[in-house]
Amino acid sequence: MLANAASLLNLDVTILDVGDRAPAKQVYAPSPPKQHIDGSFTDPEKILQLAARVDVLTVEIEHVDAAVLEKIEKSSRIEVHPTSQTLRMIQDKFVQKEHLKASSLPVADYLQVESTPEALAAASETLGLPLMLKSRHLAYDGRGNFALYSISQAKEAIAALGNRPLYAEKWASFTKEIAVMVVRGANGAIKSYPAVETVHKDNICHLVFAPLRESNPEVAATARRIAEEAVMTFTGAGVFGVELFLMPDGRILINEIAPRPHNSGHYTIEACYTSQYENHLRAILSLPLGSTALKVPSAVMLNLIGVSNNIEEIKHVARVALSVPGASVHLYGKTDCRKGRKMGHITLVGSSDADTRENLRPLLEALPGATPSSVEAGIRVIIAGAGGAAHLPGMVAALTSLPVIGVPVKGSVLDGVDSLYSIVQMPRGIPVATVAINNSTNAGLLAVRILGSATESTREDMDKYLLKLEGEVLVKVDKLEEVGWENYVVQR
Amino acid sequence: MLANAASLLNLDVTILDVGDRAPAKQVYAPSPPKQHIDGSFTDPEKILQLAARVDVLTVEIEHVDAAVLEKIEKSSRIEVHPTSQTLRMIQDKFVQKEHLKASSLPVADYLQVESTPEALAAASETLGLPLMLKSRHLAYDGRGNFALYSISQAKEAIAALGNRPLYAEKWASFTKEIAVMVVRGANGAIKSYPAVETVHKDNICHLVFAPLRESNPEVAATARRIAEEAVMTFTGAGVFGVELFLMPDGRILINEIAPRPHNSGHYTIEACYTSQYENHLRAILSLPLGSTALKVPSAVMLNLIGVSNNIEEIKHVARVALSVPGASVHLYGKTDCRKGRKMGHITLVGSSDADTRENLRPLLEALPGATPSSVEAGIRVIIAGAGGAAHLPGMVAALTSLPVIGVPVKGSVLDGVDSLYSIVQMPRGIPVATVAINNSTNAGLLAVRILGSATESTREDMDKYLLKLEGEVLVKVDKLEEVGWENYVVQR
Repeated sequence: MLANAASLLNLDVTILDVGDRAPAKQVYAPSPPKQHIDGSFTDPEKILQLAARVDVLTVEIEHVDAAVLEKIEKSSRIEVHPTSQTLRMIQDKFVQKEHLKASSLPVADYLQVESTPEALAAASETLGLPLMLKSRHLAYDGRGNFALYSISQAKEAIAALGNRPLYAEKWASFTKEIAVMVVRGANGAIKSYPAVETVHKDNICHLVFAPLRESNPEVAATARRIAEEAVMTFTGAGVFGVELFLMPDGRILINEIAPRPHNSGHYTIEACYTSQYENHLRAILSLPLGSTALKVPSAVMLNLIGVSNNIEEIKHVARVALSVPGASVHLYGKTDCRKGRKMGHITLVGSSDADTRENLRPLLEALPGATPSSVEAGIRVIIAGAGGAAHLPGMVAALTSLPVIGVPVKGSVLDGVDSLYSIVQMPRGIPVATVAINNSTNAGLLAVRILGSATESTREDMDKYLLKLEGEVLVKVDKLEEVGWENYVVQR
Repeated sequence: MLANAASLLNLDVTILDVGDRAPAKQVYAPSPPKQHIDGSFTDPEKILQLAARVDVLTVEIEHVDAAVLEKIEKSSRIEVHPTSQTLRMIQDKFVQKEHLKASSLPVADYLQVESTPEALAAASETLGLPLMLKSRHLAYDGRGNFALYSISQAKEAIAALGNRPLYAEKWASFTKEIAVMVVRGANGAIKSYPAVETVHKDNICHLVFAPLRESNPEVAATARRIAEEAVMTFTGAGVFGVELFLMPDGRILINEIAPRPHNSGHYTIEACYTSQYENHLRAILSLPLGSTALKVPSAVMLNLIGVSNNIEEIKHVARVALSVPGASVHLYGKTDCRKGRKMGHITLVGSSDADTRENLRPLLEALPGATPSSVEAGIRVIIAGAGGAAHLPGMVAALTSLPVIGVPVKGSVLDGVDSLYSIVQMPRGIPVATVAINNSTNAGLLAVRILGSATESTREDMDKYLLKLEGEVLVKVDKLEEVGWENYVVQR
């Protein structure tokens, strides 16, 4: 996806990855005599070979050899983004936590632990059970994590984590997982993408919902602020993915940070003005950063993760997506399918959360062996009808930032004027879009107009309706002329 | 752009074009042992070589050897889209016109003419002056067209058009040029993209505005209907670009048809749910067609056309675009810049026409030697204030499909209740979102809510405003408790 963004800007890209059919090599052919490099991103010799061919070096995975990158930085011939220091700090999750804590950023309590049952028992005394045990290195997509529910599992945990250096983290009973992509320019400028909700399955990112919907609007703003502050503590340019937990008491904790474009930002390709990939390139090349705003009201990203070595299961979901409005299929060109391997993703965009969630349903149902999760409705306009000294529409308007339409209902006395006054005469600050007494039709039509001011198809429908109205009036005019006003009777 | 769309679906693509650095070959590396073909798309031998390597053959330019394609079709081994018959018919602009006319589709009057001054004089007698002379073959981007203003230019015209077979077309004094991209599935299913306005400069497409803004909503619908009907008369699957003229009397004429993805549909990559390129692939592969709807309220496409052999002039515009919100740069990887050559394009998307037109300005100003064209405002919500037996808001609402907010203005008698009743008591069918008497503040805030229901950033601003209101109330509550109600004085 990074190579793709680079080609649109006619940037020269050299890729280090194993084999000729690595995904990025399929979508970017270098100008001869330049060539991609066949080798592992952990091979110091190959990294040096890559460095010799480029002006700026960046990574798409943080598990690279930071020492080699430091050596390249010191030679001062080329730029490395993010810096080897940042990569080194993030590679070791314990050091990452120490750094965030030292920077006064909110993280769950944690402790360094030895790989012994005694040390685990001591840690569980301090942090409580269950306890999250994490390998300090090479941990991602749930690999290197072990949830310790009882101290009797201690030996099992140590064996599962392969006797590597560990640390223990207090169990975070989060209500939501949030992610924020942050881009940091070479000059230090910071921009964040909208906060999104991430949903994991078997420890791997399964779904991303953008933007985050939360009754408390402060949550998204706070998540972005924390994410930006966290990224500012690191050196080097580029995109960072910040994973956060929203806790039941409203606190937001940083889970971990990825120093690169991130799975939770894939949705930005179709849903934002500038994708995380293009912004990563802009950042590391000292170009102006692009807008991180959403250009559509709602987006959902679904990962296509192998469940077996049968690639047909993945292709099936992709085929179903071709019949889903607003779905964009991204297959990564990986030839071998394996359980837990990310084979592609599908991004759904739409004019409301209701749309994208409805369109998500057939995709979830097409997943191999998956049970569809419940979907929730998205609301764009509220219609409130009320009679008497009608408070409801005004109260609703005070509780939401959505447009509220009020319908005064005629009661047994005062002909509904009491309702009308109560609804329309809202004080400065809280408007209610009031329609005529008992005229719920107009409330519905106004709602359509409001939706239509954002959605071309809805506006077209409204235009058609208005033309139909005009036609009906003209028929009545003809009739009136034909029969004369004395004989014209209005039919209701 | 087609190769790019194909790679996302992991389709195998083989490209026939000259050299290794043809744009499409830069962004799609075939799986070995498959290889692209080095050769011209007019070389019959190379076309046969390509046909031998693929299952479906398609074109990105119509000036190919239709006879060879017909031979390939007859062998029945592979599918060719669109058909050789369609290509042959469209290649000869006179035959194309004859076909459209025979299908009862609206075209400007035209005549076949010999390449002699006498024949041109006779044609000008019939069709009037000025007259558009067109070469029947190999005419595009204004090449092969000659505008004959006076019969004294006859010899000059014949020389300029290279003595090729010609036809003459009645001058179309159009008020607007419109384009509609239409996709036709292999099963005959038809879908059209929104009608757009195209603006040409020196006979080459310069700007595309999507969607078409016209006071008469019928125009866009009629343009789409005519375009769909025209495409239905051709055989084969794929995307067709239909160029139309809107005449001063409201008629819509077909100018010409391109049997392939078209410059006026580039905007679909960023602005529509499914791009013209992906839909072309879906069509020729008998896959379900994707949604052709806009996913953003407004888009503008600006072509980057060489004015000299200095590619830096083009790169300059691309660099300026990096600072323009909502701009996506597409550089085609062509190494040589030449006058009139399409080197790339920039698509601007935004939440209103006002946004995209404002963002277009710096790009137009960055074009080599260009003068910025005037920009017009986009309207999403209308606020109408009125006093007395106030008709204005209702009348406005009857004339537009946008949401209209009415503000009753208090007159010297009746305390504004007359205005309120006149505005709010609209009959069923035409709603006016009425706010309190004299409360223009609420009208403004309601407009923000309406815009905010589509735009995340506006909604966030509204959320902030509401939190500020809450804060102010709480300060007053504290003050009240502190000083006691007896001493509490409301300050205005």
